[in-house]
Amino acid sequence: MENFELTILGCGSAMPTTRHYPSAQVLNHRDRFFMIDCGEGAQLQYRRNKMKFTRLQHLFISHLHGDHCFGLIGLISTLGILGRTGELIIHAHADAERVFKPHLDYFCHELPFNVRFNAISPSKNEIIYEDKALRVSTLPLKHRIPTCGFLFEEKEKERHLIGEMIKFYNIPVKEIADIKQGADFITPEGIIIPNNRLTRAADPSSRYAYCSDTIYQNKLISLIEGVDLLYHESTFADDNKARAKETFHSTAIQAATIAQKAQVGKLMLGHFSARYMDDSIFLQEAREIFPDTILANESLKIKF
Amino acid sequence: MENFELTILGCGSAMPTTRHYPSAQVLNHRDRFFMIDCGEGAQLQYRRNKMKFTRLQHLFISHLHGDHCFGLIGLISTLGILGRTGELIIHAHADAERVFKPHLDYFCHELPFNVRFNAISPSKNEIIYEDKALRVSTLPLKHRIPTCGFLFEEKEKERHLIGEMIKFYNIPVKEIADIKQGADFITPEGIIIPNNRLTRAADPSSRYAYCSDTIYQNKLISLIEGVDLLYHESTFADDNKARAKETFHSTAIQAATIAQKAQVGKLMLGHFSARYMDDSIFLQEAREIFPDTILANESLKIKF
Repeated sequence: MENFELTILGCGSAMPTTRHYPSAQVLNHRDRFFMIDCGEGAQLQYRRNKMKFTRLQHLFISHLHGDHCFGLIGLISTLGILGRTGELIIHAHADAERVFKPHLDYFCHELPFNVRFNAISPSKNEIIYEDKALRVSTLPLKHRIPTCGFLFEEKEKERHLIGEMIKFYNIPVKEIADIKQGADFITPEGIIIPNNRLTRAADPSSRYAYCSDTIYQNKLISLIEGVDLLYHESTFADDNKARAKETFHSTAIQAATIAQKAQVGKLMLGHFSARYMDDSIFLQEAREIFPDTILANESLKIKF
Repeated sequence: MENFELTILGCGSAMPTTRHYPSAQVLNHRDRFFMIDCGEGAQLQYRRNKMKFTRLQHLFISHLHGDHCFGLIGLISTLGILGRTGELIIHAHADAERVFKPHLDYFCHELPFNVRFNAISPSKNEIIYEDKALRVSTLPLKHRIPTCGFLFEEKEKERHLIGEMIKFYNIPVKEIADIKQGADFITPEGIIIPNNRLTRAADPSSRYAYCSDTIYQNKLISLIEGVDLLYHESTFADDNKARAKETFHSTAIQAATIAQKAQVGKLMLGHFSARYMDDSIFLQEAREIFPDTILANESLKIKF
């Protein structure tokens, strides 16, 4: 059962190339779109992927380096032209409001919707968004400026009712919600019918972790243990291990090590440095350690 | 003789489409690059066209609508990463410095080069840049906010010396500069040798006018009379004539009328509204009035 669909809009690093746009991606959960990072050109890529602008309500910005947020103003401006209403929420470091608000006031002063900045604390691991079905929390990362990743977790789902059994025991409607949550049923005669006779297991919940940009750190492992998909930056290959450390980035091998230790379902590498003409080096190096690795690429879509 | 090369980086309007980037173009004059407008993605398009970032020293911003300037910060940031030195001059309305400076300070605080804003007065027709060979002046336009076009004019060139004649009259080196400027030569015996016996005509100078965004106005005609190439906005076709007026934009027919009245060499239409799936309507309508019309398109290069 697929719960999420991730679309990569950009997976390059600071210097854009002819192959990669800067960081931006969209996670679709039940037709609600969550954008993660918003590098320059994100709105162009969004359109190129024929995604509906109206579905977008939340933006999550990992950190305030330009390659992760220079697309914000253009995207918001376009949403304005499109006549979007309601609210757009930008989850980002507190500086974001201070830095982008004057731009919004100057360039987008007649927006038909409200832009709300939700100041997050990148150094904490805490829930920053929650709805009926989903929970998003910050994953503290270690980069040159305050940075966090994001963990998207589906909440535990309701168990499936077994129709015939509900009928057979003549269960009243008011009991149904509890039974879906796992409650047993007690008949008027006082007999306990265990929940597993009335329901089948809930669909599994999916989890997605986005980690970019960061130096390798063991601390991350326990926070993302067992996620279905991990997007981890892999700015450099092993040939630039020293440079990765110096610039607080990771190599493909380090990303794969995190994936392997955290026993994730699948690893997607991204945030590739412009110096590599061919990204397959990242894949080769990572697969030595964690075979279920794939490379991000513009317009790649993956369901999980 | 071709003096300029123009490269279109983007020729869409406010709403980006899968076909067009927002406004940005580069005029190459003797390997000095002048960027005109800088919509989102300009740096990506610049790179895609394999143009050298080091050649870029001047940016001219017609007005402060997002589709003409949202690419500035990304471009400057990339120039910083590339280690560019010296100075980058942004010719734009005075607000530009107020609006963009805080962003530069936040995102690009360690730039290895200086960004200087040259505040221009869009309502005036005046020279804003001059070097040995080129002159740039503002062309007042009429849009919803202060807006100007730009006229790029090569200065009059030196006449070509006729080698044999220079030798024949044994002309001293110190006279050469004046003769190239058109002076006659007086022999030691007092005989006047007219300049046209010593030189051939100078190469013709080229002129380029960029006019976007603007409502139709006759006033523009005399300012751009006889330019070799006119880039004029053509946001709408004739079917949206009323909307053009309302939003202070031009139709293809209006752009062609300007071109025809100003007797320009060639007209290039751009700034196409996202509502047209096929730009050929602009071409058809304009050519009825001014046959030597072409359509701008991303990565189109034209020499003149």
